[in-house]
Amino acid sequence: MSLTQNAISPCRTEDFAEWYQQVVRAAELAESSDVRGCMVIKPWGYGIWENMQHSLDVMFKETGHKNAYFPLFIPLSYLAKEAEHVEGFAKECAVVTHHRLEASPAGGLRPAPSAELTEPLVVRPTSETIIGATYAKWVQSYRDLPILINQWANVVRWEMRPRLFLRTAEFLWQEGHTAHETETEALEETRKMLGVYETFAREHLALPVYTGEKSASERFPGAVQTLCIEAMVQDRKAIQAGTSHFLGQNFAKASGIKFVSRSNTPEFAWTTSWGVSTRLIGTVLMAHGDDDGAVLPPRIASSQIVIIPITPKEDTKAAVLEAASHLAKALRSQSFGGDPIRVEVDTRDIGGGNKTWDWIKKGAPVRVEIGPRDLEKGSVAVARRDRPHKEKSFISTSEFIQNAAIILQEIQDGLLARATALRDAHTVRIDNKADFYAFFTPKNPEKPEIHGGFALAHWNGSADVEQKIKEDLKVTIRCIPDSGQIPGAEEPGQCVITGEPSARRVLFAKSY
Amino acid sequence: MSLTQNAISPCRTEDFAEWYQQVVRAAELAESSDVRGCMVIKPWGYGIWENMQHSLDVMFKETGHKNAYFPLFIPLSYLAKEAEHVEGFAKECAVVTHHRLEASPAGGLRPAPSAELTEPLVVRPTSETIIGATYAKWVQSYRDLPILINQWANVVRWEMRPRLFLRTAEFLWQEGHTAHETETEALEETRKMLGVYETFAREHLALPVYTGEKSASERFPGAVQTLCIEAMVQDRKAIQAGTSHFLGQNFAKASGIKFVSRSNTPEFAWTTSWGVSTRLIGTVLMAHGDDDGAVLPPRIASSQIVIIPITPKEDTKAAVLEAASHLAKALRSQSFGGDPIRVEVDTRDIGGGNKTWDWIKKGAPVRVEIGPRDLEKGSVAVARRDRPHKEKSFISTSEFIQNAAIILQEIQDGLLARATALRDAHTVRIDNKADFYAFFTPKNPEKPEIHGGFALAHWNGSADVEQKIKEDLKVTIRCIPDSGQIPGAEEPGQCVITGEPSARRVLFAKSY
Repeated sequence: MSLTQNAISPCRTEDFAEWYQQVVRAAELAESSDVRGCMVIKPWGYGIWENMQHSLDVMFKETGHKNAYFPLFIPLSYLAKEAEHVEGFAKECAVVTHHRLEASPAGGLRPAPSAELTEPLVVRPTSETIIGATYAKWVQSYRDLPILINQWANVVRWEMRPRLFLRTAEFLWQEGHTAHETETEALEETRKMLGVYETFAREHLALPVYTGEKSASERFPGAVQTLCIEAMVQDRKAIQAGTSHFLGQNFAKASGIKFVSRSNTPEFAWTTSWGVSTRLIGTVLMAHGDDDGAVLPPRIASSQIVIIPITPKEDTKAAVLEAASHLAKALRSQSFGGDPIRVEVDTRDIGGGNKTWDWIKKGAPVRVEIGPRDLEKGSVAVARRDRPHKEKSFISTSEFIQNAAIILQEIQDGLLARATALRDAHTVRIDNKADFYAFFTPKNPEKPEIHGGFALAHWNGSADVEQKIKEDLKVTIRCIPDSGQIPGAEEPGQCVITGEPSARRVLFAKSY
Repeated sequence: MSLTQNAISPCRTEDFAEWYQQVVRAAELAESSDVRGCMVIKPWGYGIWENMQHSLDVMFKETGHKNAYFPLFIPLSYLAKEAEHVEGFAKECAVVTHHRLEASPAGGLRPAPSAELTEPLVVRPTSETIIGATYAKWVQSYRDLPILINQWANVVRWEMRPRLFLRTAEFLWQEGHTAHETETEALEETRKMLGVYETFAREHLALPVYTGEKSASERFPGAVQTLCIEAMVQDRKAIQAGTSHFLGQNFAKASGIKFVSRSNTPEFAWTTSWGVSTRLIGTVLMAHGDDDGAVLPPRIASSQIVIIPITPKEDTKAAVLEAASHLAKALRSQSFGGDPIRVEVDTRDIGGGNKTWDWIKKGAPVRVEIGPRDLEKGSVAVARRDRPHKEKSFISTSEFIQNAAIILQEIQDGLLARATALRDAHTVRIDNKADFYAFFTPKNPEKPEIHGGFALAHWNGSADVEQKIKEDLKVTIRCIPDSGQIPGAEEPGQCVITGEPSARRVLFAKSY
């Protein structure tokens, strides 16, 4: 590979969408399967998900939640229980109609006509209805509340234009489902879990996110209030990275979650739901990746340190491999972010240059080379994924072991700082319509993806205005940002489109 | 509850099958959902699965495997690729035929006729075919082998007679799928993972299991060899608790997993698959439970120690709750089986007696009561689930904290010893047909479930004899036990049915 060429082609500024696909491929994170819209998550990609799961799971348990598991299948009639929900989810579902196959007279197999289900089953696109039906059985008295449960599961939403991680027919996620005695408590829960997501995004994914509320048109079907975290990625588009829904009593009424209150009256419970998914992996890639491939925040990297033994000669090979294995063990006994450092030794029988490039493309935070001369000197050559790939520090092995966690934290902090700088540089207050339209119009028609970024603008609250902006610019309100995040965003002004009064600015952007 | 009455009715000797259902219900482990054959796994049950997952996952990774994720859906044509596989799995599948719903003219929703899939999709009953198709893309050279991957997933096999945990339409499992360069290596892998399962069953589930090979008629459809672990539960039936399959080149040929060998010739890979499922939870319940409910081995119990604060008076309540919380923290800083001790404080607003019985039924290994008088004395009242429920030891709090892990290990070891004694007492060598038939014939026709247990008998290797025994007695060959487990089982003899020569004894039993 020459000095000037990058590992990923095209580069980000040439074609961001294609760059993303190439990174997912080159980093061996995932691939499309032969089943339309369904992906295979490869070990390096799944490792990221496992680390996300582990950290989130700890946070969920610390906030009082327990895990459980509910059926994959939802009876058709359940989906129809909540009026808005049916509109939102009934359209793009995988429908199970038969429970047996048989030999087809035409050869091969076919669904057995004699085994048609009386009521078709829908593969869960989300589980509010089936979980609601279960909670209705569990809840009789206020003493049975709150119910604080999370589920790790796969879900299916048929997608016509799938994109690996960001939008696939099947994806992995967690869905929290809670039921409460009072509206206040349910609202607090909705807020609390949004806070968990914001902390997780910042501390683990190195993603600065804006928190806020969705406008009515962007709400979860059936929710009273949808809160979200919104991240900016490098083409300046927004990605909704997590949502927390206050469902009011809508699903409790639809499912019959009723209880006898403290004052002995029958009441409906107040419910919430909240989720993040494998979409976070795509968000991280788009936020931190560079023209050489993935750049993974150490907290979620499948391996944090990769040791590459350099074995030019047979007679020193065994000693080098042994040293590599010892180094791995020593590093694993060090802790980063509360867990042992994740270390991999690349013993594959291929050239060292290929190995190095593989790990660059995969985004391993730290690469360590150890060869016969290093053994003599008691040193290692350390390279960081957040620095130019030729840059290596030669440091003593013991010093490296001692500083490994510090280096990882430096990389983690550096990625967050860089992503924050990018977001802040492209989050702009806009106060008139012409500027607003110009902001979202690409300067170069050959690169239609490069536009302004996030616009903080006043809005009169009208769904018609929202719709018009969407049609004209493919721009939506990402959220009404929570107070205190953006200085001055809560001051009143005039709607950027109509000039009508507005109490506060909202966040507009193109999005994935 | 009176002294003589037990918490679960009927008791085990009255009606084992109904006792089991009542334990699952009383221990709040799982319940049937409104979706036929699909269960809801409740938090106390799911916690067991999480602990099993965690421990197995560590063992899989220590043996060189990584996790990945493959699609839930399998194209119909894939399932038909391997001849025996299609026979074994095509019958009882959930079949997706449509990808959209629409309003039905008759009201409600229906699968949209315009959204019928060209090729139906089967919800995975197991993933050999879809994973094989993926590996075929990944493998070109012997350098790409071995592939050592595991998947944690849900699977669906339509069941006409579901039973919670033991046999449900949807269940959770792990499926390992590996591909190797040579037959020897694949056979070694098959054996290695059987060993992992045996160790896991013994050390974590307190289950002594026989390892061995299935007879041809009981093999996994498409396998060359199926190895298994077989456990005895308290009604003396066998449960197949885990399987490891040597698939030869059958699936490699069906899926086209081909590679260029070291000698530059095209070869098919040798593959294996191996799995355990939420069925293990049912096995543990049936093996260790008693007439008061579940008895959970500490290594897998959702909570290992439950603290019950006794708060008779308002003025001492806060101090007791604080002491309980401190005790929980101190216990959590202790380690058992390599992980922090899992502790729960039951602060529910119900009577202490109800709490105690709840935890007995749930099978929490250790219960600790702490009340105002205990605070004064600096002591706690400790009760063990493996001892009579009235038996409490009053020991100093600091001593208890110090000994907590030791107590848990004692309980763990005690359960294994008890289960081993039961199994050994009911594993009998039988050498003639009359005894064999008598062994499997219930003595009391009113209790048709109580029979002899495991019979070690000679068999001539004939599938016809196997079939006859199955028809007459509902007894099958559970396995051809591996050498060295049962003294003398490898000596030659005469078939217990036909008198023909037999090289070794095999294990016969009724089974779940």
